[in-house]
Amino acid sequence: MATTLISGGTVVSSTGRAPADVLIDGEVITAVLSPGSTLFGTDVAASVDRVIDATGKYVIPGGIDAHTHMELPFGGTAAIDTFETGTRAAAWGGTTSIIDFAVQTYGTRIEDALATWHEKAAGNCAIDYGFHQIVGDVTPESLKAMERLPDEGITSFKMFMAYPGVFYSDDAQILKAMQVSRDTGLMTMMHAENGPVIDVLAEQLVAQGKTDPYYHGVARAWEMEEEATHRAIMLAKLTGAPLYVVHVSAKQAVEQIAGARDRGQNVFAETCPQYLYLSLEEQLGAQSEQYGHFEGAKWVCSTPLRSREEGHQQAMWQSLRTNDVQMVSTDHCPFCMKDQKELGLADFRKIPNGIGSVEHRMDLMYQGVVTGEITLERWVELTSTTPARMFGIYGRKGVIQPGADADIVVYDPNGHTSIGMPVDENGKPTGRKHHMNMDHAAWEGFEIDGRVDTVISRGKVIVADDQYLGTKGDGRFMKRGLTQYLT
Amino acid sequence: MATTLISGGTVVSSTGRAPADVLIDGEVITAVLSPGSTLFGTDVAASVDRVIDATGKYVIPGGIDAHTHMELPFGGTAAIDTFETGTRAAAWGGTTSIIDFAVQTYGTRIEDALATWHEKAAGNCAIDYGFHQIVGDVTPESLKAMERLPDEGITSFKMFMAYPGVFYSDDAQILKAMQVSRDTGLMTMMHAENGPVIDVLAEQLVAQGKTDPYYHGVARAWEMEEEATHRAIMLAKLTGAPLYVVHVSAKQAVEQIAGARDRGQNVFAETCPQYLYLSLEEQLGAQSEQYGHFEGAKWVCSTPLRSREEGHQQAMWQSLRTNDVQMVSTDHCPFCMKDQKELGLADFRKIPNGIGSVEHRMDLMYQGVVTGEITLERWVELTSTTPARMFGIYGRKGVIQPGADADIVVYDPNGHTSIGMPVDENGKPTGRKHHMNMDHAAWEGFEIDGRVDTVISRGKVIVADDQYLGTKGDGRFMKRGLTQYLT
Amino acid sequence: MATTLISGGTVVSSTGRAPADVLIDGEVITAVLSPGSTLFGTDVAASVDRVIDATGKYVIPGGIDAHTHMELPFGGTAAIDTFETGTRAAAWGGTTSIIDFAVQTYGTRIEDALATWHEKAAGNCAIDYGFHQIVGDVTPESLKAMERLPDEGITSFKMFMAYPGVFYSDDAQILKAMQVSRDTGLMTMMHAENGPVIDVLAEQLVAQGKTDPYYHGVARAWEMEEEATHRAIMLAKLTGAPLYVVHVSAKQAVEQIAGARDRGQNVFAETCPQYLYLSLEEQLGAQSEQYGHFEGAKWVCSTPLRSREEGHQQAMWQSLRTNDVQMVSTDHCPFCMKDQKELGLADFRKIPNGIGSVEHRMDLMYQGVVTGEITLERWVELTSTTPARMFGIYGRKGVIQPGADADIVVYDPNGHTSIGMPVDENGKPTGRKHHMNMDHAAWEGFEIDGRVDTVISRGKVIVADDQYLGTKGDGRFMKRGLTQYLT
Amino acid sequence: MATTLISGGTVVSSTGRAPADVLIDGEVITAVLSPGSTLFGTDVAASVDRVIDATGKYVIPGGIDAHTHMELPFGGTAAIDTFETGTRAAAWGGTTSIIDFAVQTYGTRIEDALATWHEKAAGNCAIDYGFHQIVGDVTPESLKAMERLPDEGITSFKMFMAYPGVFYSDDAQILKAMQVSRDTGLMTMMHAENGPVIDVLAEQLVAQGKTDPYYHGVARAWEMEEEATHRAIMLAKLTGAPLYVVHVSAKQAVEQIAGARDRGQNVFAETCPQYLYLSLEEQLGAQSEQYGHFEGAKWVCSTPLRSREEGHQQAMWQSLRTNDVQMVSTDHCPFCMKDQKELGLADFRKIPNGIGSVEHRMDLMYQGVVTGEITLERWVELTSTTPARMFGIYGRKGVIQPGADADIVVYDPNGHTSIGMPVDENGKPTGRKHHMNMDHAAWEGFEIDGRVDTVISRGKVIVADDQYLGTKGDGRFMKRGLTQYLT
Repeated sequence: MATTLISGGTVVSSTGRAPADVLIDGEVITAVLSPGSTLFGTDVAASVDRVIDATGKYVIPGGIDAHTHMELPFGGTAAIDTFETGTRAAAWGGTTSIIDFAVQTYGTRIEDALATWHEKAAGNCAIDYGFHQIVGDVTPESLKAMERLPDEGITSFKMFMAYPGVFYSDDAQILKAMQVSRDTGLMTMMHAENGPVIDVLAEQLVAQGKTDPYYHGVARAWEMEEEATHRAIMLAKLTGAPLYVVHVSAKQAVEQIAGARDRGQNVFAETCPQYLYLSLEEQLGAQSEQYGHFEGAKWVCSTPLRSREEGHQQAMWQSLRTNDVQMVSTDHCPFCMKDQKELGLADFRKIPNGIGSVEHRMDLMYQGVVTGEITLERWVELTSTTPARMFGIYGRKGVIQPGADADIVVYDPNGHTSIGMPVDENGKPTGRKHHMNMDHAAWEGFEIDGRVDTVISRGKVIVADDQYLGTKGDGRFMKRGLTQYLT
Repeated sequence: MATTLISGGTVVSSTGRAPADVLIDGEVITAVLSPGSTLFGTDVAASVDRVIDATGKYVIPGGIDAHTHMELPFGGTAAIDTFETGTRAAAWGGTTSIIDFAVQTYGTRIEDALATWHEKAAGNCAIDYGFHQIVGDVTPESLKAMERLPDEGITSFKMFMAYPGVFYSDDAQILKAMQVSRDTGLMTMMHAENGPVIDVLAEQLVAQGKTDPYYHGVARAWEMEEEATHRAIMLAKLTGAPLYVVHVSAKQAVEQIAGARDRGQNVFAETCPQYLYLSLEEQLGAQSEQYGHFEGAKWVCSTPLRSREEGHQQAMWQSLRTNDVQMVSTDHCPFCMKDQKELGLADFRKIPNGIGSVEHRMDLMYQGVVTGEITLERWVELTSTTPARMFGIYGRKGVIQPGADADIVVYDPNGHTSIGMPVDENGKPTGRKHHMNMDHAAWEGFEIDGRVDTVISRGKVIVADDQYLGTKGDGRFMKRGLTQYLT
Repeated sequence: MATTLISGGTVVSSTGRAPADVLIDGEVITAVLSPGSTLFGTDVAASVDRVIDATGKYVIPGGIDAHTHMELPFGGTAAIDTFETGTRAAAWGGTTSIIDFAVQTYGTRIEDALATWHEKAAGNCAIDYGFHQIVGDVTPESLKAMERLPDEGITSFKMFMAYPGVFYSDDAQILKAMQVSRDTGLMTMMHAENGPVIDVLAEQLVAQGKTDPYYHGVARAWEMEEEATHRAIMLAKLTGAPLYVVHVSAKQAVEQIAGARDRGQNVFAETCPQYLYLSLEEQLGAQSEQYGHFEGAKWVCSTPLRSREEGHQQAMWQSLRTNDVQMVSTDHCPFCMKDQKELGLADFRKIPNGIGSVEHRMDLMYQGVVTGEITLERWVELTSTTPARMFGIYGRKGVIQPGADADIVVYDPNGHTSIGMPVDENGKPTGRKHHMNMDHAAWEGFEIDGRVDTVISRGKVIVADDQYLGTKGDGRFMKRGLTQYLT
Repeated sequence: MATTLISGGTVVSSTGRAPADVLIDGEVITAVLSPGSTLFGTDVAASVDRVIDATGKYVIPGGIDAHTHMELPFGGTAAIDTFETGTRAAAWGGTTSIIDFAVQTYGTRIEDALATWHEKAAGNCAIDYGFHQIVGDVTPESLKAMERLPDEGITSFKMFMAYPGVFYSDDAQILKAMQVSRDTGLMTMMHAENGPVIDVLAEQLVAQGKTDPYYHGVARAWEMEEEATHRAIMLAKLTGAPLYVVHVSAKQAVEQIAGARDRGQNVFAETCPQYLYLSLEEQLGAQSEQYGHFEGAKWVCSTPLRSREEGHQQAMWQSLRTNDVQMVSTDHCPFCMKDQKELGLADFRKIPNGIGSVEHRMDLMYQGVVTGEITLERWVELTSTTPARMFGIYGRKGVIQPGADADIVVYDPNGHTSIGMPVDENGKPTGRKHHMNMDHAAWEGFEIDGRVDTVISRGKVIVADDQYLGTKGDGRFMKRGLTQYLT
């Protein structure tokens, strides 16, 4: 097998940084060495098949995006990125693993759902992938099927307190699933919004003629995120299940989580870049020639963007510093404006929910390092190390150490990344464009003072010199172990 | 220089564990390798000068005890361990670095204090050592001197809200010192107990004839630890200084710290093994043939032992899991019963405050892994990685990675350690005895389901096969950088 | 009309006590006078038709029990007290007003429910009575009907987060009802327990053969009371409705209420004597010759009795002092052991929920004055003044002042009351016995250091000299105004 | 003795309002009657010596200002209102009792201090007055003297955590005094600001040339009010003393108080009108022709005005609704701009601290009723009933009931009050002017939608028809009992 040396860089972990070289043999890291090592008379750099010069750059474990929805059927359409296009975009952005969601819907079997998702992904992915299981129909059979998930390498499942009639589970169902979680060690993931109440509020707004995308955020009031978050925490407390709250956006939800954590409960949370950078006010103000006020539809996602005046964004950044929120995922769920978001032109409730960010997460979070919101080490922890530990792949992923998969990103702090589709003076798109399938850029105009330089997936360089060098099917399914993050 | 390979063990870091070999060249780690590596045709184990077989054992960064008081003058006597005896005992127990305290007393110059402590330690230590600076006299001159401490490798200073007339600083003085902390990056360390109030309570108890050691803990009520902790936090908030609260023992103090941390303030804390394992009730019940009820004097320390009925011990363990307390030090400050503790036979106020634990910290905390209180990774984090980051020596210390000092402990989870002076059926001491200078064992009878196997300090094996192999003066002064733990 | 003077007593209000005489003319208080007054040459006592000597006794506004369920159909049977027997028992115990609940069940009209309850009560009551409206079926029609309730003198309605399939409303329904509450000023009353989850837990317990009354309390875990309380608070916050949580028993629920109140939300609560005096442990230990362990069925109520070891009772008393709980009602809902509680001999879920206490509330709470839990003034506030203000009858009721209905109790602090059915040496019941319809005494053995001396309802003495002097139908329906307790 | 009937008004208490007539005989209320009563054939109104027509007006217990400083020596000058002028102004404003402070300074005896203050007040007051005792020198003698205070009718004492070198007590002294408080029932009153720290901050500001009045508020940071408040609470908890925090202005201090109250501790607080209406920003912007920016000196008081942007004023109003703050006093301590405030022209530290408000409290708080911040009943509770209960004069004062002193205010909700010195078109002062001794109006320009109509002090009408009808010396010293507000 081929050997590679990443040489001259600064290896960054969740606890510190150090100049070190990384030796890769085939798919795996075999040594971390003092820079420029001569080992027992052998000049290491001269002995390997390939040397990647990382001088002046950071060498980090590849990004792990633990929350994506490729090809997700939703609202009569489907997320526009396939496993092929979505994972390739992820690779472009320095993410070398995703964990997507297999969806059991009402009346179907969990085994069949999982098989379907395996089929969608197998042979198509650019990077390694795993699955969480969405449990949309709690029955004696599905509860039994859940118990067998760990054998399949599926060690987490998600439920929805929102979307009645679609993914929704009621409290009695959640209780039963959490009892399985407690008994098996499966991580319970929760979409924590009070859907039944939100749907009434949304219906009342529409009845008042308030149909613009902005009202999506009005209907999904933070009170109902706080409420559901507390409820999920109490159900987890009652059962003893570990709980992971997805896409937290409200500061009051964070307070509930922080409180439970202070009391020693195994409660965890992720947030997403949109809740750190974007706001309800900006969505209200969004406007375009083509779509007018409907332009805000590009940012319709759930949980929704929150008010900047109320201070949610600042609080979410703080939660990343205090470790009340432990990691950052994207909830990547992209829809085109054309034909997809447009479904909700007359009624915000019909806008497919989702933003495409899988390509930008590492950059957007690195910008937080530049602006002083988080440290360099925390960046690595939030985007790779903790996701790996949280979802049972640490050791193979999420760390640069002997024995680990050689999923490595060389990141250039002197580079620059312009997100979106900037135009030249003639209005033509210029420079780097995103690689996701959406027909627009949700992150248009964001400038990053850093750049993904080289991306290595299990020893193979898949992005370098602004070229995608991988092949469809490079990525393999990851069987995951139980969470490694419990206290 | 000689090369050593630690082979076959499980390297444990603060985030995970992995089978890996560690290559040491001279004083420094040069590589972490896949186990049993052949590198470019060279069998590594066969090529090194020495192989340490760690099969079935944990390989961890050497312990860092960030709170010791060797030879501390206190109450008309002095802590009985010299830098020589104390650091040797530390080595026996798997601790390879200590940070002691240079003491500026009222009317003296900080520079002189520091010089004095350098003199005490230089050439005497078994392991590397650093100093915090105790500031006991805030004057324009001492404030100036504080600004120069980072150049000396002293990046933290400690103040006392207790001990009026001895180490005590009032709030105005603390404010001024914290302003220096904010401006220089020096970490403010605080003994947070309301000394003026405690002294009145103690005086009143003695006046009532309540002179037993137990009343030491009654006088030092948790309310006055909570109070002072909150006050220190508010002063730190006002000034912007980072704050590290030493030897936290009351659950209400932890709540104050947790609250400040939830709000994003840079507030940190340590606890000590005595606050995890021992209680006021046990002190009340302590009894010996020789000393009667005065036996409890062996556990007179400040902050004091807390009530088990009130749940402090359980809360302190929890605080270690929630990271509201980030590290464990010993506050090692040993006094003999004979001639030292005995000073307070008639008045608990005259008992020198302190317990000797520097040798037992790694074992006592490992027992927390065995009983499920903390994870193996958290053990490493609490005793080595975080202390290194907190006090600016991470990279050199606190981690096993190329470039780091080869301060390594091989710990045997199948070994056993009996602390104290167990006796055989004839009443003769048997088995391992502690190596500290005290004439008694504060931890008598504690049994640990693990054992320090081998201790390496900067590449030199100083403890192995139950032998101390080091030499007085092995240890060097560590110039420390600023804290690496701020958010 | 006849005039009465209550002379020589100490009038107690919610803010203080003073020696004063009370002059009644017909049904109404017309003056409060300095004791022994001569007014413009007239000796008042000599001029009235009747003088009640209250020397050495407290003169207080008659008790108001804002939570009773006379003749409530429940679990296939009905509460055993009729409006006749229940209100007469109330009178015996110093309560001169009750507010009972008209029940709209699924598929029925609110108007019809209310008419039915008017029919049950009219002409039968010993004391004045009002109704809250239970809303068990939220439909466009019932929401409209709610808007008209204030015109009927019904200014509060109750919903259930428990009892799915019986009284249960889901969150969407609660939201809609609370919007009416906000718009009309109707007080929202809430039974806050997560019924769907509790029912699963109960089912699982029964499936495990845990069928004893004790498991009723196990199934109804405090976590599910805290959860539902928080959820109700958030829904009230979202809508702006005032919220009154009924029969709070868990200290964690009180914490949620206290938090909301600290933030300025109009959230109120009652507790009941059983949550102050009785515990889950005592229920577990309950035993009788006739019923064995099933004896605990007499204390099966919802919310359930809570664990004394966890400290709920102590916390509930404290909540009365801190005004985090504002008043004490009984939730009087009596069932006989024979034929009624017995329904659940094989399955605790079939035990009708309820305790009969309407006769004992004033005495049981007075005992809290004796033991120092509350002040004398707070006793009056908790049992009369605040209930009156909370539910819109203050001025007429709940206060001794000119213009108020002459609902007055003379309470003797030197008297004594033995609750239950004490027996003489021959095993015969002796002394005072309760007057409720139940075949047992839930409060057997409670001894009260005080005694209801004289009870006056709208100027008519209905209890005196241990005689009931009233007549069926003395009590009239009270049209209530909107709550007078909002901030 | 003469009889008076207040007829036709609405009597307002802390719990409700009702139409009622009040009969006064001499100095005392002898009856509260149904309006227009005929008693035993006698037409009451026709039988009394005087009828005061209160039709359309509120009849309330006279205001009680529990925090005034007449003639207080401070900063080399003295508060400009004497007991004569200050109490007369109070009367004009509907306040019929004050509690002032006798000041024990360092090196003096409490007995002498008290005698001095008796001398200042005796024969000079327009209304009844009492004293709190300021304890400025804690010695064995003064602690003994404190124990005798209740016999003198002095049942509360105040200490200062601010003003080192003047009134300041350290924590050890506070502890000792609080132990007396616990043993005797004396209420401990606390000025809770960390003076030693504030003085350093002030000194640093002045050294930077920041000498304007505004910097008074900068130096007295809310962090140091929160800190001291928490400290006082913990000392009270430790000793068991009841605690009353004076002039609370910071929302974080309220949070500390609310927390202690939620935990059942006897902690109470007052705020003052300036903390409800005025802000630091307005002080920064204050400007006048004569004084320029120094105009802000008129609002220099301690605790200082707080930032409106930070939301303190809104939080203080809320605290009045939630009863986390129980009453409103003025901290009346007036200084002229000329010769007094001017002392600090070059250095804000030399500006005498204080605002004159004793005349305006009832009006300013009534305006809170008009704007919906508080209810009418709460107005009476905050300004009269609770002050009376808190400081042991309830029954005599603070309530309209037989036996109470006839201290009554008729307040006209249809009247209007313009505070300050409004000018006509020619710039001449017009309309009502305040009656305090200051040369300026701290409340200039405040308009009140209500008006003090008639003021009765122990049966004597002292203000009516815009005339002062009283005489110097009308007011008598009130011996107070122990607080009646403990739970």
